[in-house]
Amino acid sequence: MSLRGRNFLTTQDFTHAELKDILDLAVEIKRGGGSAHPLKGKGLALLFFNPSLRTRSSFELGMFQLGGHAVVLAPGKDAWPMEPREGVVMDGEAEEHVKEATRVLCRFFDGIAVRCFPKFQNWAEDRLDPMLTAIAKYSTKPVINMETIVHPCQELALMQTIREHLGEPRKKKFLLTWTWHPKGLNTAVANSAALISTKFGMDVTILRPEGYDLDPRYVEAARENAKAQGGSLTVTSDIEAAYRGADFVYAKSWGAIPYFGRWEEEKQVRAGLKHFIVDAAKMKLTNNARFSHCLPMRRNVKVTDEVADSPAAMFIDEAENRLHVQKALLARLLG
Amino acid sequence: MSLRGRNFLTTQDFTHAELKDILDLAVEIKRGGGSAHPLKGKGLALLFFNPSLRTRSSFELGMFQLGGHAVVLAPGKDAWPMEPREGVVMDGEAEEHVKEATRVLCRFFDGIAVRCFPKFQNWAEDRLDPMLTAIAKYSTKPVINMETIVHPCQELALMQTIREHLGEPRKKKFLLTWTWHPKGLNTAVANSAALISTKFGMDVTILRPEGYDLDPRYVEAARENAKAQGGSLTVTSDIEAAYRGADFVYAKSWGAIPYFGRWEEEKQVRAGLKHFIVDAAKMKLTNNARFSHCLPMRRNVKVTDEVADSPAAMFIDEAENRLHVQKALLARLLG
Amino acid sequence: MSLRGRNFLTTQDFTHAELKDILDLAVEIKRGGGSAHPLKGKGLALLFFNPSLRTRSSFELGMFQLGGHAVVLAPGKDAWPMEPREGVVMDGEAEEHVKEATRVLCRFFDGIAVRCFPKFQNWAEDRLDPMLTAIAKYSTKPVINMETIVHPCQELALMQTIREHLGEPRKKKFLLTWTWHPKGLNTAVANSAALISTKFGMDVTILRPEGYDLDPRYVEAARENAKAQGGSLTVTSDIEAAYRGADFVYAKSWGAIPYFGRWEEEKQVRAGLKHFIVDAAKMKLTNNARFSHCLPMRRNVKVTDEVADSPAAMFIDEAENRLHVQKALLARLLG
Repeated sequence: MSLRGRNFLTTQDFTHAELKDILDLAVEIKRGGGSAHPLKGKGLALLFFNPSLRTRSSFELGMFQLGGHAVVLAPGKDAWPMEPREGVVMDGEAEEHVKEATRVLCRFFDGIAVRCFPKFQNWAEDRLDPMLTAIAKYSTKPVINMETIVHPCQELALMQTIREHLGEPRKKKFLLTWTWHPKGLNTAVANSAALISTKFGMDVTILRPEGYDLDPRYVEAARENAKAQGGSLTVTSDIEAAYRGADFVYAKSWGAIPYFGRWEEEKQVRAGLKHFIVDAAKMKLTNNARFSHCLPMRRNVKVTDEVADSPAAMFIDEAENRLHVQKALLARLLG
Repeated sequence: MSLRGRNFLTTQDFTHAELKDILDLAVEIKRGGGSAHPLKGKGLALLFFNPSLRTRSSFELGMFQLGGHAVVLAPGKDAWPMEPREGVVMDGEAEEHVKEATRVLCRFFDGIAVRCFPKFQNWAEDRLDPMLTAIAKYSTKPVINMETIVHPCQELALMQTIREHLGEPRKKKFLLTWTWHPKGLNTAVANSAALISTKFGMDVTILRPEGYDLDPRYVEAARENAKAQGGSLTVTSDIEAAYRGADFVYAKSWGAIPYFGRWEEEKQVRAGLKHFIVDAAKMKLTNNARFSHCLPMRRNVKVTDEVADSPAAMFIDEAENRLHVQKALLARLLG
Repeated sequence: MSLRGRNFLTTQDFTHAELKDILDLAVEIKRGGGSAHPLKGKGLALLFFNPSLRTRSSFELGMFQLGGHAVVLAPGKDAWPMEPREGVVMDGEAEEHVKEATRVLCRFFDGIAVRCFPKFQNWAEDRLDPMLTAIAKYSTKPVINMETIVHPCQELALMQTIREHLGEPRKKKFLLTWTWHPKGLNTAVANSAALISTKFGMDVTILRPEGYDLDPRYVEAARENAKAQGGSLTVTSDIEAAYRGADFVYAKSWGAIPYFGRWEEEKQVRAGLKHFIVDAAKMKLTNNARFSHCLPMRRNVKVTDEVADSPAAMFIDEAENRLHVQKALLARLLG
């Protein structure tokens, strides 16, 4: 199957078979196989509107290992701030329209990868993913999502790690648990975990405090995935029930959507929820589950050192898989 | 003809034939021709005192495509702030003298490219181009101007685009028009447009409001170019006359030189000049002219969406040509 | 002898023979010898917690010239701020623990190079070199110190420069002199100069004002080096005596350790010490000594233009040697 030239904005645009094909190629690449330099001479623009360690490292190094070159650009910092909306009179901060920036990058590069977090002031706006949507609209080359309101590259790495440690994911019990964090964070990884686990037919539980529901768009999509793939989706606030029998525990903190823009209020609500931390007592309820997290991960805030340093912890493997799955993805889209 | 080892600080240091030679090589490179890796193993330092999207991308990717490697340095941000003046007691902000920085870079790299905008407080100082001048003074390797008070790489891309769309530029009517912008911007691209269009024998009109004259140094140089190349130079504030019969309209905003350092006052003057925007009515006066701009470009401020989205718009082609002309330039200077 | 897989945190972990081996390979590399691409396909992470010009350029370009690729990361700026301490509840600024960041980078890269200056508030903490120590602790790949509380790569470049200009360093007179600077700077290069000069058997004098002693840890180590290598170590505040007969003068400013965290007070003390500047009168007392400095170097503050521009000045050679010695080091550690 050819994925050549396609965007990778969300895994929902890809079939289970297509995603599995990418993961299978990643296995081969990890083993040192695959063609030597499938992207020889090719260029990839990496647009970072937000910080990055793993994403930056794995994309830049991955392109080098594939024979190409990645150029890192930070609009608003070392490049010009950009306007994504059509038809506006650009007399504000933005010096450049996404329409121009994207079309120019497409003349230079073979693909564009974008990290652009929400602004966390108004979810109704954030959920439109305005920057990525605009870039994808104007781009004539593949656009890759490096985290906006979903994080599909992380999904691939997560699913690869599940496959490595649990074998066939179908019908395995996947727990996505909310955890406390001092700030109200992006829902992207949580949305993504719900999407990919259901896409691969797992029995999925989302454990979150009341008021911390994910956007219905993603819950519905996950529900449809589950239906199509023979898995299931449960949303609960019952910690004990959620952990019981889980095969894989995935932790993530996120801000409460109804409070976007009112973070001081949300902080009060959140302050009572520190007991969601992943600890040894909770892990004992599981079916000897593996634990993972997308990193960065605050220790003794989201997870205790005891769990993070136990053999169950898979987050370093998951991070490593970022490199392999992204190389497979780039080989497929740009190759 | 050999350009090997020369600086590229301004196109005025080069003959028409030398510039045409670079553009002809760029045509070959754009077609996929030219030697495969003329800069194999070579290094280029990119010094960015100011932000960049296209310049950064095209130089970094260009070096990769030529077989070399570019290192991006941002003095004052991720590298040390620098002092360009001789003989000073360095007890202020600058940790490093340009004399040392330049000589060290020359030991490491095969060339140095520099972006350093004016400070916009005192044109008498800015017009000395102190940082670039100092770097060129101490450098033993080719120094390339990536925009200071002129922007010669943009000139090459502009002229290439004119050649692609109008054929032989000689005696074609080139209009450089001032436009409004919320800030008082650099005159570099305007100076450069005047230089390159006259250098290639075009009939050139500079349209600007009273009080927005370019530095006489560039107007005089353009006048001499025109004389030598059989073209002409007109400076006017008559919008209608300027547009009439034009073959190529090039827009740029810049700050009024007499007001450098008194930007609040200048802003009042500029506020009455929004009607200089490039719009469809003005374009109708032309000889079916092409329109371009150096980017970034504020839509509906400098140019209406209607013109920017019309088939006359050439700015994406011009931006693409940055890559090709710079690769040709690098091959000639460092090859 | 194989240095493969070892950390390069301080030259004290290496024998004189091992260091000499690296310098000998660097000579070969400088001459254009050595194997062509000993690090073909390999990756190096460059972690910059502080600014850099030479270090950044020489490591990034060096990796390219060796066939590999370096990825530049700036934690706290374009990557996440990091926590080096064990067992803490991470509810402060740091989003990521060094334990995770390091282990992930080790999955991606073949080595990690780190620049992390002290915080200059509390030397008792700074001298533990917490960030580098933590990274080295968790890393399974070679870790290279790009300047923390010592600067061992600079040491290699310095000693190479001494060898180039003085021949065999043993028993040559090396003067490390404190100089004034408007800020209280890192002691790293001073510590390092004391270590490497004694390691190579030189007769070493440290000239500093009363109250500006280096940490006894380094003075003791230098004293032991001197004993083992047949050289000597003298610490003095007598300027004339110190300069008399010197073969090599190395200048550096540093803050007074007892005043760490009380910089306004230290500034008063320091204000009376501007006469430590390296000038022609002092240089006349020497045995026609060469002069060098690690760069960046404030002219007419640490050294007069007269000396800096004299044939005795070696700092550009020393800076160039950064590239060659680091390539030799990388080839030995990662090859």
